[in-house]
Amino acid sequence: ISYASSAAAAHPNLVINTDDVDTMRQAVDSPSGRFTVAYNDLLTRLEPIIESGVDVPVPVDSGGGYTHEQHKLNYRLLYDAGIAFQVSGDERYSDFVRDTLLEYAELYPNLSLHPKHRPNATNPGRLFWQSLNEAVWLVYSIQAYDLVYNSLSSSERDRIEAGVLRPMALFLSEDSPTTFNKVHNHGTWVTAAVGMTGFVLDEPLWVDRALYDLELSGEGGFLKQIDELFSSDGYYSEGPYYQRYALMPFVTFAKAIENNRPNLRIFEYRDNLLLKAIDTTIQLSYDGLFFGINDAIKSKGIVTDELVLAVAIAYSQTGDRSLLSVADAQDQTILSGDGLLVAQALDDNLAEDYQMRSQAFLDGPNDDQGALVVLRSNDSVLVGSEGQALVFKATSQGLGHGHFDKLSIQWFDRGEEVYTDYGAARFLNIESKNGGRYLPENETYAKQTIAHNTLVVNETSHFDGDVKLGNLNAPTLNTFNVSEELVLTSATINTAYDGVLLGRTLVSFDLAGESVVLDIFDVEAETESTLDLPVHYNGQLINTSTDIHSEPSLQPLSDRNGYQHLWLRGTAQPGAGLTQHTVLGENNRFYTHSSILPDRAQVLYVETGANDPDFNLVHQQAFITRIQGAAQNRFVSLFEPHGEYNPAKEYTLEASSRVAAMDVIEDENGLTVYISLTDGSQCAVAIAQDAAGISESAELTCE
Amino acid sequence: ISYASSAAAAHPNLVINTDDVDTMRQAVDSPSGRFTVAYNDLLTRLEPIIESGVDVPVPVDSGGGYTHEQHKLNYRLLYDAGIAFQVSGDERYSDFVRDTLLEYAELYPNLSLHPKHRPNATNPGRLFWQSLNEAVWLVYSIQAYDLVYNSLSSSERDRIEAGVLRPMALFLSEDSPTTFNKVHNHGTWVTAAVGMTGFVLDEPLWVDRALYDLELSGEGGFLKQIDELFSSDGYYSEGPYYQRYALMPFVTFAKAIENNRPNLRIFEYRDNLLLKAIDTTIQLSYDGLFFGINDAIKSKGIVTDELVLAVAIAYSQTGDRSLLSVADAQDQTILSGDGLLVAQALDDNLAEDYQMRSQAFLDGPNDDQGALVVLRSNDSVLVGSEGQALVFKATSQGLGHGHFDKLSIQWFDRGEEVYTDYGAARFLNIESKNGGRYLPENETYAKQTIAHNTLVVNETSHFDGDVKLGNLNAPTLNTFNVSEELVLTSATINTAYDGVLLGRTLVSFDLAGESVVLDIFDVEAETESTLDLPVHYNGQLINTSTDIHSEPSLQPLSDRNGYQHLWLRGTAQPGAGLTQHTVLGENNRFYTHSSILPDRAQVLYVETGANDPDFNLVHQQAFITRIQGAAQNRFVSLFEPHGEYNPAKEYTLEASSRVAAMDVIEDENGLTVYISLTDGSQCAVAIAQDAAGISESAELTCE
Ligand SMILES: [Zn+2]
Ligand SMILES: [Zn+2]
Repeated sequence: ISYASSAAAAHPNLVINTDDVDTMRQAVDSPSGRFTVAYNDLLTRLEPIIESGVDVPVPVDSGGGYTHEQHKLNYRLLYDAGIAFQVSGDERYSDFVRDTLLEYAELYPNLSLHPKHRPNATNPGRLFWQSLNEAVWLVYSIQAYDLVYNSLSSSERDRIEAGVLRPMALFLSEDSPTTFNKVHNHGTWVTAAVGMTGFVLDEPLWVDRALYDLELSGEGGFLKQIDELFSSDGYYSEGPYYQRYALMPFVTFAKAIENNRPNLRIFEYRDNLLLKAIDTTIQLSYDGLFFGINDAIKSKGIVTDELVLAVAIAYSQTGDRSLLSVADAQDQTILSGDGLLVAQALDDNLAEDYQMRSQAFLDGPNDDQGALVVLRSNDSVLVGSEGQALVFKATSQGLGHGHFDKLSIQWFDRGEEVYTDYGAARFLNIESKNGGRYLPENETYAKQTIAHNTLVVNETSHFDGDVKLGNLNAPTLNTFNVSEELVLTSATINTAYDGVLLGRTLVSFDLAGESVVLDIFDVEAETESTLDLPVHYNGQLINTSTDIHSEPSLQPLSDRNGYQHLWLRGTAQPGAGLTQHTVLGENNRFYTHSSILPDRAQVLYVETGANDPDFNLVHQQAFITRIQGAAQNRFVSLFEPHGEYNPAKEYTLEASSRVAAMDVIEDENGLTVYISLTDGSQCAVAIAQDAAGISESAELTCE
Repeated sequence: ISYASSAAAAHPNLVINTDDVDTMRQAVDSPSGRFTVAYNDLLTRLEPIIESGVDVPVPVDSGGGYTHEQHKLNYRLLYDAGIAFQVSGDERYSDFVRDTLLEYAELYPNLSLHPKHRPNATNPGRLFWQSLNEAVWLVYSIQAYDLVYNSLSSSERDRIEAGVLRPMALFLSEDSPTTFNKVHNHGTWVTAAVGMTGFVLDEPLWVDRALYDLELSGEGGFLKQIDELFSSDGYYSEGPYYQRYALMPFVTFAKAIENNRPNLRIFEYRDNLLLKAIDTTIQLSYDGLFFGINDAIKSKGIVTDELVLAVAIAYSQTGDRSLLSVADAQDQTILSGDGLLVAQALDDNLAEDYQMRSQAFLDGPNDDQGALVVLRSNDSVLVGSEGQALVFKATSQGLGHGHFDKLSIQWFDRGEEVYTDYGAARFLNIESKNGGRYLPENETYAKQTIAHNTLVVNETSHFDGDVKLGNLNAPTLNTFNVSEELVLTSATINTAYDGVLLGRTLVSFDLAGESVVLDIFDVEAETESTLDLPVHYNGQLINTSTDIHSEPSLQPLSDRNGYQHLWLRGTAQPGAGLTQHTVLGENNRFYTHSSILPDRAQVLYVETGANDPDFNLVHQQAFITRIQGAAQNRFVSLFEPHGEYNPAKEYTLEASSRVAAMDVIEDENGLTVYISLTDGSQCAVAIAQDAAGISESAELTCE
C-alpha cells in the first residue's frame, strides 16, 4: 500500500492553506512592507543553513546538550524552509526539508527510548528525553512536510511517512495512552501533533483521537483540554507566564482544525474560549511584561513567539483592529496568511488602541477557584510607563509552579513594579546557577508566603507549604465591581490556615488627582497568633513615621518558611494611629504606604540575603507589619503615589504624602474609611458589607 | 547727573546683540522649525505669569524657602520676558520687566544683610542669604534690563539703576572685596555680574575690575579665573558635575566680552581655554551622564541649562558641526542668536558625529596635578548604550567636594556603570533626607577610600581623610599612550599614605573581539600592612572561582573610615593563581574580573547598609581582595565583558569567561601579562618599564 495516496487532501492545509500561499506570493512581489522585510530576513537567515546542509545526529543528550538542541533547531529549520519553499518556489528549500526528513526516516525506526529518559517517567521520548519535545518536533515537522508535500515523489513520501511521521504519531498516541489522554498542557502538544499529522496523512481516526481521546470518549483530547485547562474567562491556572506557552499548541491545532474541519467552529467553541484566552494573556501584563506571579521569569511578556502567532490568528478570526496595536508592539511578522493580514493592516495604519481594563479573571474550569483580579487606572496603556495596575492574586494554587501567595498583591505605577512579587528564583540557562534550572531558593524563599505581599500566620506558609493541599483549596472571589469612580474587589479564604479566615478588600480610586489603592486585610483566627503582613518594595526608603531601632548586626528573621532568607535590619513600635512609609521608586516617583495600626503592632525592616551562600537571591527589601498574640486584626492601608524626584533638573515635587490622617468607622452596614489630606480636604470610602462581613459595594465621597 | 546718559552703547549687547535680535525676529516668522517652537513655548509659559503680575517679596527665607525661591524665579522670568519683548516687540513683556525691576529698585535700598546670612560668613547677601545667589540674580537681571533698555524712559532707567543695579554691583565688588577677588567659581559669578553691569551701564572701570580684580592687579578677576580654575585641557578640578555648573558664568560673561571688547579675543584666551572646557565637560560623560566622581549626583549630564548655553556659544564661535550632535541630544533650544544658529543648523540636518575619545585630561592650572584619564573603546558614542569607558581618577583632591579616591577607577560598558563609584550620598531637595543636603554618610562612607575601586592601606582613607592634606598632594600621571591596538596609562602617588607608593597601570585593548581592561596595581610600603582592593559592582554575582565561607549573621567590616557601613557577607581564601568573579550586569551582559592573587590573599564579600539607621545608603555590593601583612604586592586583574543573558527570548550566550589562565613574567625591561583563552589562543600584553618601574609603553600580541 502507498501511504501517500490521499489525493483528496490539498497541501498545505494546516496553519497555512493554498489561498494563503497565493496571497503571500503576491505580497512579496512588493519590495516594501513588513511582510516582505520579514520574508527577506528569513531567506537571509536560511542561506548559511542551506549551504552547510543537514545535521540529524543520533540522540544522546538531554535538555541543553548538543543533540537535544540540534533536533530542536531542526524542527524550526524544517518549518522555515517549508515556508521559504512555498513562497519562493525555490527547490533548494524543499530539498532541504526532504533531505532532513529522509534522514529522520532513516534514524527514527532504529531508536528505542531515549538514553536519558527518566527511569520511571510516564512520558519518555525517543528523539528527545521526554515525549513533550517529541510532540513539539512533530507539530513543526508535519507542517514542514505539508508545505513541501507536492514537491515530493510518491516514494519519498512513503519513506518519510513510514519512517518517521507515522511511527512517531503512533508512538505519541497508541503507545503513550496516559500522556495522550491527560488533560494537561503537555497533552495539548501531543494531541495537536497527532491530530495535525492525521490531517496531512488523511487519517481521520487520528484526528478524532486528538479531539476526543484514544477511546473517542470525550473524557480527554483537545476539546476536553479547552474545557478544563481554562476558566470561562480564558485564564490558565498557572498564570500568564505559563499561559502564553500553553497557548501555542492550542492556537496552532485550532487553526489547522479550522482549515480542515470548519464545521467544528473551533474558535467559537465554549463561547470563543481560545480567543478569550489570547486576549486574557495580553491583559495579564504591565508595560508589556507578564505579571510575575508563580514561577515566572519577569522579563517575559507579550513579545514572545507564542503570542505573536496567537495574535495573528486572533486578528484573522476577528478582524479586531485593537489587536493590531498588540502586533505593532510585538514588532514581529509571522510568515503565514494570518501574519500577512496583520502586516498589511499595520502597513495601512489600521491599528486602533488596545484597552487595558480592570477585570476579575475567574479561575478554574468551572470558574469557582477564585480569580486573578486586575485593577487599572484609566490612563493604562499596553506598553509604556503610563497607568497604574494592582494585581490581586485570589487564584487557585496553580499546580507545581504555584506560589503560596493567597490574596497577595502586586502594584505597578508609571512603568515600575512598586510593591513586588519576587517571581521565580532562577537564572534561566545560566549554567553556574544550578544549571540554569530553578534554584533551591525558589522552594525555600520565592514560593513561600513571606516572600509575598500577603498575610502570614505564625511564620508558616499557606497550606503549610503543601502543594497538594493548595491545589484542593482556592479563595472565593466575593466581589468585583467597576463604577465610574472606583473599582472594588474582595476575596476570602478559610483554608490557607486551619481555623483562620483571611479576607482582603481592595478599592482603587482617584484621590485628589492620583490613583490610589485602599487595602483592607481582615484576619480572624481561632487562637492568638502572630500576624505578619509584608510590603515588598522596589526603591529606597525615604521617610518613615516610625522610629526605627536599627540592628548593629544582622540575624536571619527566623529559620524556616522563607524567613531564614531575610535579614532583620531594624524594628519599630509605631504605636496606635497612622503609620507611614515613603519609598522613592526607580521611576523617581514617591510612594507612600499609610496604615492604621493597633497599639501593639511592630514594623520589621528586612532584606533578602540571609542563608544565601551562593548569592542566588536578588536583593529585595520589605517592611513587615507584625501583630503578636492576636486572634483577629483588620489591616487598613492606603497606597499613594505622589510627586517627582528630578535630580537632573534639580527639583523635587511633593516628596511628602498628602495623607494627614486616616480613620475607620464600622457600623452594621459596613465600614467607612476616612482619609484626611494635608490640604484640609477629606475623602471617605464607604464599603457596604453583608452580615458575614463580605464587602459588597463601595462609594467614594470627597469634600 | 543722569546715570542713563550712555547713549553710546547699543542695547542689547551682552549675550544677545542687535544683530541677533534681527535674525531672531526673522526666524520666528517661519511657522515651523526648532526655534519657532521654542519661542512659542516661551510665550505660552510666560502668559500666566504676565497675567498674574509681579511678586517681589521682602527677603526672609534661606535656600528652599518661599522668598528665596521667588527671587530665583524672578530673575529667570525677567530674562525670559526680556527675550520675549525683543523678539515680539510686545510691550506687555517689557512692562513686566520694568515693573519688576522698579519693585526691586524700591526694595533693595532698604535691605541690609539678609536675615538668614551665616554669622561669620565672608559672603553674605542682601536679597539672598549668600552673595553667590545675588550675583546670579544680577547676571540674569542685567541682561533683562539690557533687553528692555530702549523701551524705558530716562527716569525709569535712573530709578532702576540707582535703586538696584548700581548698588548691587557695588555691593558685590567694592563692598565684598574678598569674594570679588577670590579665584574661585563663586568669584566668577560675581565678576560676571559686575562686568556685565559695567557694559550695560557704561562703567568701563567695573569691567576692568571684573577682568583684573578690584585693584586691577591681575591677581584676581575673570582672566585669572580662566588661568587658574582649569587645566590647559579645560579640566576643572572638582570634576564634571561641578564643571558644568562653573561653566555658566564663564561662557555668559565671555560672550558679553566678545560683543563689547572683541579685541580681547576672550574665546582664544589661553589657547581657546573656554572652548576646551566646554568640550571637556561633554567628554566627561557616558551615555549622556557625567562620570560620578566626587560629590556628584549621578543623574546629571549633558542635558543641563548650563551646557546647552555653552554648546550654543561654542558652535557660534567655531562652527564645529559635531557640536550640533550634542545640541541634538540635549534637545533644547536657546532663544539667543547662538541658539538660533544651532536650531537652524539642526533644522537643516547639518549635525555631524561627535567623537568620544580616549584622553588624559590634565589637572591643575599648571597641568601638574595628575589627570582624569578616560579610556574608551572605538565604538563609543555620545548617547546610547554602545561603547565602553574606563575612568581613571588620577586627579587632585578637588577641594571640599573631593573624594579620597586616588587612582580609583569606574568602568562603563553597554550603557551601564559596571564597576561603580558611589557618587554623593545625597537625595537632592528631599526634605526628609537631611533637608535635601549632603547626608552624614557622604562624609562617613561616600568620600572614604573603601567606597572606591582603589587601594586602601590599613583600613585608612587616603591622606587619612584630611582634605587639606589631599589638596596639597596629587598623583603623577606618568604615561598616556594611544596606539592602534591599545591605550596605556599609568600614574603613581606616594603621598596618599606615609611611606607607601601606589602605582596603577591600565591597558585597554581588544581581546578576541571584546574590549577589555588590564589593571595592574602596585603597592610598595615601608612596613607590612593590610592591603584592600575593592571592586564595587552593579548587578548580580553569578559565578566565582572561590569557595565562599558565608556568614550566618552579619557584622560591620570594621568601625571607621567607611568600613563601618559595610556588612561582611562572606570570605574566601582563593589560594594562589587565577581568581574569577562573574557578575551579571543590569544590561544582561556578563562581566568577569580575573585576577592573579598570591597564596595568602583573601576575598571579602561586602554590601552597604551597616550603621545606616536612616536607610540613607543606596544598596551596593563589592568584593574586596585583601592581603594582610604585606609590604608590597602587585594586583593584576583583567576586566572582561562577555555574552548575553536573554530570559525573554530564553537564551544565554557565553555566560563563562573566556579567560582560562593568566600569568605575569617580569624581567629587566618590564613585565608581560599572558592571557590564555578557553579556545586555546593566547594574548600577551608586554609593558615596558623604566628603572623606577614606571610603565612607558605596551604592546599586544595574540596567537
Ligand atoms: Zn510569587
Ligand atoms: Zn567617589
